[in-house]
Amino acid sequence: MAQIWHLAARPDGNLTTGIFALSAQPDPALDESMVRVENHWLSVDPYMRGMLDENGSYMPALPVGSPVHGGAIGRVVESRAVALPVGTMVLHNQGWRDLSTLAATDCTALPQDGAPIRRHLGHLGMPGKTAYFGLLVAAEAREGDIVFISSAGGAVGTAALQIAKIKNMTVIASCGGAEKCAALKALGADAVIDYKSPGDISGKLRQAAPDGISVYFDNVGGDHFEAAIDSARVGARFALCGMVSGYGERMRLCIDDPMRLVMKRLRLRGFAAPDFNDRHAEFYGDMLRWTLSGELKSPETVHEGLEAVPTAFVSLFSGGNLGKMLVRLAPAGPGDAA
Amino acid sequence: MAQIWHLAARPDGNLTTGIFALSAQPDPALDESMVRVENHWLSVDPYMRGMLDENGSYMPALPVGSPVHGGAIGRVVESRAVALPVGTMVLHNQGWRDLSTLAATDCTALPQDGAPIRRHLGHLGMPGKTAYFGLLVAAEAREGDIVFISSAGGAVGTAALQIAKIKNMTVIASCGGAEKCAALKALGADAVIDYKSPGDISGKLRQAAPDGISVYFDNVGGDHFEAAIDSARVGARFALCGMVSGYGERMRLCIDDPMRLVMKRLRLRGFAAPDFNDRHAEFYGDMLRWTLSGELKSPETVHEGLEAVPTAFVSLFSGGNLGKMLVRLAPAGPGDAA
Repeated sequence: MAQIWHLAARPDGNLTTGIFALSAQPDPALDESMVRVENHWLSVDPYMRGMLDENGSYMPALPVGSPVHGGAIGRVVESRAVALPVGTMVLHNQGWRDLSTLAATDCTALPQDGAPIRRHLGHLGMPGKTAYFGLLVAAEAREGDIVFISSAGGAVGTAALQIAKIKNMTVIASCGGAEKCAALKALGADAVIDYKSPGDISGKLRQAAPDGISVYFDNVGGDHFEAAIDSARVGARFALCGMVSGYGERMRLCIDDPMRLVMKRLRLRGFAAPDFNDRHAEFYGDMLRWTLSGELKSPETVHEGLEAVPTAFVSLFSGGNLGKMLVRLAPAGPGDAA
Repeated sequence: MAQIWHLAARPDGNLTTGIFALSAQPDPALDESMVRVENHWLSVDPYMRGMLDENGSYMPALPVGSPVHGGAIGRVVESRAVALPVGTMVLHNQGWRDLSTLAATDCTALPQDGAPIRRHLGHLGMPGKTAYFGLLVAAEAREGDIVFISSAGGAVGTAALQIAKIKNMTVIASCGGAEKCAALKALGADAVIDYKSPGDISGKLRQAAPDGISVYFDNVGGDHFEAAIDSARVGARFALCGMVSGYGERMRLCIDDPMRLVMKRLRLRGFAAPDFNDRHAEFYGDMLRWTLSGELKSPETVHEGLEAVPTAFVSLFSGGNLGKMLVRLAPAGPGDAA
């Protein structure tokens, strides 16, 4: 019997754990070319917020009553697929449960690459790919750029910050709270902005980047976006990937004096990690090298046990994590060591 | 004595001709390397609106009491510059007056290229350059694209529309009034949207482009911008050059559900014609060839006499022109024939 988190109700205004319900389901028979996976690590990510609403977002809306899904890493415990024998560690997208039954083609066997295996849900996985291609391709950031990163304390932000520093850029990182600010400084940020401290973001950014910014990596939209336009130099490039602050509320993004988009010759580009799937090797090669050399640190916030999944997920939106937010289900195996 | 239009007061809400005042000024002595130019054609352009406000826009704000300036074509009538002998036809930026005294380096001698000389204020000049590079470079529009052009009845829009058709794109053109719509159809638009007719732009655009748009050439911002986001296909490119509807009011541009920028992988780019000055030859070669072959038509709205300049200018913002808005000062010379 698999224990699976289901969507019990749509979020109504504030997001609460009460919209999720855990229930057991009989394990389906294992058809030809399918595997059963015992999950060790579950991922919760901001993008998942979108599928909870009626309109959907990155993905179609999840019907109420459906099992929730998301990134997961586990061990094949039963297999009718030659390519994935029992014992193989795999990455898949049928998380929010302890046991997943799925087609072998929906699993990716994970390499023993010397990095902790859970990193494939973080800086070696989707969030890392979002940071890498968002910064280097969508924003075309290069050595010498002055980069503003919003929500820089998350999985994507901590990667973007460090990639920018490895590439000799100047980084202004925004996050909430003195503790996170200190952590981002330790990761190499040249300046940090605490959005929870008194004062508006525009003023703080002007102070942190008196010469303006040439790149904005947007994870939140809202007032950070407005501040970035305000401080943008001529020709600045904006990579837009999240607009977390807009999830749920279908908020409006209002730009005062939009002629500034023209006058400053701004370039804005929306993107998502899967857009760059054909360039996976490039990303993985760089990020693994930097991980193994210690240049790229991967802070993590780990919750324990399947029951903790909704709590971990909901706290993403109140800044409850530094770095990648994970839920650990099984005792660490050999590949799980830090 | 030169008769020169001055800015007598800042526009207060609605733009009226009363903020301009004509007054005579003694002609300054002609220093070494300077020329005196008798103007034949004066240009009025939407961008000029920006310098009338306290904050400026493309250019610094014009102090109240200053002479207004803008594109003009005239004949050198007095010269202390070897390169520009008397009789040379020149383009310069000291318009809004009948007689201009300026440095030879601030004038461009105009070629006898077979096109009417006033075209250098229109499709062979700044508005043409805006259309050409905005469409082909800022929006990266190519054969097969479905292009939405707002304010398509103006100097920039009529050029963008026809360049797109010459390059085998599909064009949806927006303008105000049945007469202009018919004119844009005659210029090759595949579909036209009358923004003055009942109904919202989003609905009209969805109807005109049921398969969506891949390029948006923005001259107005506001509801056209919103409609373009609504109808945008994944990966659509937006060239932003004017946002005319925002002039003066410092209006806000509000985007509902800004996650659409991300989900649709939109690319927005602000630009202005001078950004492409180093590629003038490319633009001029194409546009002159199309002009002489008759592929590129250049509708014009011509007012007569210096007194008409403010009226011509103000009526730009109520859609009083089809194509390039010009003021003619002198009887047509040999280069002025249509």
